[in-house]
Amino acid sequence: MTEVRRLLDSLDGDVFDLSRPYVIGMPQSPNHPRYWHSLPRRHGDMVRADGGSAANDIIVMGTHVGTHIDALAHVSHDGVLHGGRDAAAAQVGGRFEESGVHTVTPFVGRGVLLDIPAARGVDALPAGEEVTAADVVAAEAALSAPIDEGDGVLIRTGWGANWELGEAYLGMDSGVPGPGPEAAELLASKRPALVGSDSIAFERLLPGSGHAVLPVHRILLVEHGINIVETLALEELAAAGHREFVLVLVPLPLVGATGSPVRPLAIVPRA
Amino acid sequence: MTEVRRLLDSLDGDVFDLSRPYVIGMPQSPNHPRYWHSLPRRHGDMVRADGGSAANDIIVMGTHVGTHIDALAHVSHDGVLHGGRDAAAAQVGGRFEESGVHTVTPFVGRGVLLDIPAARGVDALPAGEEVTAADVVAAEAALSAPIDEGDGVLIRTGWGANWELGEAYLGMDSGVPGPGPEAAELLASKRPALVGSDSIAFERLLPGSGHAVLPVHRILLVEHGINIVETLALEELAAAGHREFVLVLVPLPLVGATGSPVRPLAIVPRA
Amino acid sequence: MTEVRRLLDSLDGDVFDLSRPYVIGMPQSPNHPRYWHSLPRRHGDMVRADGGSAANDIIVMGTHVGTHIDALAHVSHDGVLHGGRDAAAAQVGGRFEESGVHTVTPFVGRGVLLDIPAARGVDALPAGEEVTAADVVAAEAALSAPIDEGDGVLIRTGWGANWELGEAYLGMDSGVPGPGPEAAELLASKRPALVGSDSIAFERLLPGSGHAVLPVHRILLVEHGINIVETLALEELAAAGHREFVLVLVPLPLVGATGSPVRPLAIVPRA
Amino acid sequence: MTEVRRLLDSLDGDVFDLSRPYVIGMPQSPNHPRYWHSLPRRHGDMVRADGGSAANDIIVMGTHVGTHIDALAHVSHDGVLHGGRDAAAAQVGGRFEESGVHTVTPFVGRGVLLDIPAARGVDALPAGEEVTAADVVAAEAALSAPIDEGDGVLIRTGWGANWELGEAYLGMDSGVPGPGPEAAELLASKRPALVGSDSIAFERLLPGSGHAVLPVHRILLVEHGINIVETLALEELAAAGHREFVLVLVPLPLVGATGSPVRPLAIVPRA
Repeated sequence: MTEVRRLLDSLDGDVFDLSRPYVIGMPQSPNHPRYWHSLPRRHGDMVRADGGSAANDIIVMGTHVGTHIDALAHVSHDGVLHGGRDAAAAQVGGRFEESGVHTVTPFVGRGVLLDIPAARGVDALPAGEEVTAADVVAAEAALSAPIDEGDGVLIRTGWGANWELGEAYLGMDSGVPGPGPEAAELLASKRPALVGSDSIAFERLLPGSGHAVLPVHRILLVEHGINIVETLALEELAAAGHREFVLVLVPLPLVGATGSPVRPLAIVPRA
Repeated sequence: MTEVRRLLDSLDGDVFDLSRPYVIGMPQSPNHPRYWHSLPRRHGDMVRADGGSAANDIIVMGTHVGTHIDALAHVSHDGVLHGGRDAAAAQVGGRFEESGVHTVTPFVGRGVLLDIPAARGVDALPAGEEVTAADVVAAEAALSAPIDEGDGVLIRTGWGANWELGEAYLGMDSGVPGPGPEAAELLASKRPALVGSDSIAFERLLPGSGHAVLPVHRILLVEHGINIVETLALEELAAAGHREFVLVLVPLPLVGATGSPVRPLAIVPRA
Repeated sequence: MTEVRRLLDSLDGDVFDLSRPYVIGMPQSPNHPRYWHSLPRRHGDMVRADGGSAANDIIVMGTHVGTHIDALAHVSHDGVLHGGRDAAAAQVGGRFEESGVHTVTPFVGRGVLLDIPAARGVDALPAGEEVTAADVVAAEAALSAPIDEGDGVLIRTGWGANWELGEAYLGMDSGVPGPGPEAAELLASKRPALVGSDSIAFERLLPGSGHAVLPVHRILLVEHGINIVETLALEELAAAGHREFVLVLVPLPLVGATGSPVRPLAIVPRA
Repeated sequence: MTEVRRLLDSLDGDVFDLSRPYVIGMPQSPNHPRYWHSLPRRHGDMVRADGGSAANDIIVMGTHVGTHIDALAHVSHDGVLHGGRDAAAAQVGGRFEESGVHTVTPFVGRGVLLDIPAARGVDALPAGEEVTAADVVAAEAALSAPIDEGDGVLIRTGWGANWELGEAYLGMDSGVPGPGPEAAELLASKRPALVGSDSIAFERLLPGSGHAVLPVHRILLVEHGINIVETLALEELAAAGHREFVLVLVPLPLVGATGSPVRPLAIVPRA
């Protein structure tokens, strides 16, 4: 047996798909170009001499729709990107050469789930609820080992259960639960490679306030250089009780873009 | 040390990115909508009360541009998709519910590289050259273990070195090297999960003939239900002498689409 | 003075723009790809040697968004387009060669405004109200001359005043006033070149019913071969009291498409 | 007979469509997003209870593809747009509020054709040939009346006959005939409302030089505030010998965009 085979045997396990399927009409922020798909060619449109026929696609989308990752280029504060880079200069040419999503290293590493509702003994956090630093501490205590530098840290609020509700998932009127600034600072101090959650913005949104200010984006992307993953599907993973897993998360190399769709996998080795 | 940590330690190794970066103007087939990227919002366009600002993207693309995977829905023969499914019926509604790319299982498994030029003792195959069944046999003999059912089989022709040349990579005039029908049948008999190569079509293209007929697509997609990956970057992996690796290849769940961009990784465990 | 000058002198008059500006976020049916605009290049992105710089655009849109015209290809009934053309056969190849919007003759002709609220002595029709055949008769009586074959007939319901309200303009919950089948039959009997109105669908929509059935589209497009113009801006023209004008309405020659954006002008010669 | 009818009677005449049909694959500059069209819904995809079915479209395009008009926002020089407006400031927000194509007044006025090859006694200008001020003087002399302020001035080089050749129309290798700076200055001094021509750029392009510098754009758009129309179809109009006509040219109100597709009509009153 080869080394690769041995490794794959040990890696064999349950695979959880942490992404949302891309479908026309799925909930997404109106700030971003809407996902659309069409078939320019269908079978039968052009049949080759031998009876062969091909169908193809056109896709239009923003990069902050569906399950996606934010590049450091996504957010600036007072005109400055992470690392003190001047935001205006960085975007000349219509793409971010140095902080675009193509610079994000594909992630194959330890993933941990901070299940905040489980730590609180509830099913899901209510709309507009803040995930506090104390929540992070309590949920981390439920892990088999603490968060390490370089981990992928996924926070479940339970809001993901609303995905199927459509517009309600955006929580424009209701608000959305999510990490507050203290939780974000605590997370950042642990130096994860990335963080993510099950709502459309990795923020606590108050009812009716929308995306007026996004302090957690500032803390993570601008101040600490930590990528954010949004619109994750975490319900199934949490229901199975898993808190630690091999996380595979590979952004597309969209040169100079501020984000990318991703389809993260959580691989849980069999006991 | 947790089981996940132990596993990741053993998985730690060299990671090869087998994808091409998505850039406006990259070589792609004129049959498919061109990749385009723009920043609808740049930093400074709308500054929040606290000094925060976000940039975002619009992406337009076909799904058979850049490094990508073909779903079984992509090709039909005599009006029939793989498994005898009626192609006309399958596409009603503008998406392929049952054979679209969202039905392709994310691949984390054994990958092998069939380095055809190496087996022949040359740097690269010439334009229009056929990869034969004998080539496959010879290149497989160089593996540490034969191809198994469920493997991901990547074929290097050396044509990928032309990527930077732009239009010449398409080989419209010159032709492109690639597998012929006999090689495809032999590959299919080994029941891989997927196959891929370093040219834009997993076919041998004769000079000036373009995509008039695509027999290998028919054999693999329609007759055998094997997904095809195209426009792979294999030069670096081959130059390092690796023939076996953990292949990670995760299509986006674009519901009903005939293909998806992918960014495959080859992970080579350290000796 | 040349003949053209003489003609233009007589044509000189008040010009009314009957279109809605295309803006991201404008109200449109969720059935159609959303209008989006971005600047891939802005000034300064690439400066030429002489100090010149160009900005450009990418536009994504459906053709039934904003002020637009429906081609005969847009609607079929029982599988048949206008003139008994088989709808399935007509769309092979992904475009309507024979009934697409490129086949609509640019219109420069007599336009008349049927101001239904004015005929009823009200400001605007209420949501969900039917424009009846009697309404058409009454509004036609207010014209200086009856509708002639080949005219462009624009029907004002007053609903256009809701354009600025955003989603409410769609009337999904409220319903929308518009012509019923009797009015459509009466209009069709007069053989206009085209008809149009100030709502998003040239139909009466009942509250909550959406676009479940579109009988007036069937009557006009399928049975009579009369193009329909939607989302017109008629308030200003009506407020000025004009009922007859030179109507200029030129669709884009989008080969094989089912509709096109238009910017119709009403030119009212000075008395 | 109403005044409008009388007017239309006098306007009745031959109508020349000066636009190119929008088709996937038509020649266009690689600097701009490519025109693409697809039918997201075809007839039969979703059939309503009464047997009705609708097909619709998605369009992706740049605004400087096909027959189109350049807004003043399109070009800047040394960071300045026409009227001394700062280009960087004008584009904040991702659209040009004050010099975008929505600010171009729809044109219904006198159009004149300067047929340069006819004035020279040749069929068409050769590739790379400059239209000089003397050419403009000679062609203007062939008009029934000189150019007036506010006219639409269309210049025929004969290059439009190459439209059907595809890539060759772009003239990247061959060069393209067009007005030089002296011709542009002379034209500008006559204060036309707009100018246009039958090539893809209203410039003389030398062989192999591409769009390295665009002096005529600077003169017309930046210095004189005169809109430019490109990719016109002038062969038929010229062949019929018409030099003066009613020109109808209505840009779409794409708010903040740097250009718009147009379908100009030349109406030649019957003698």
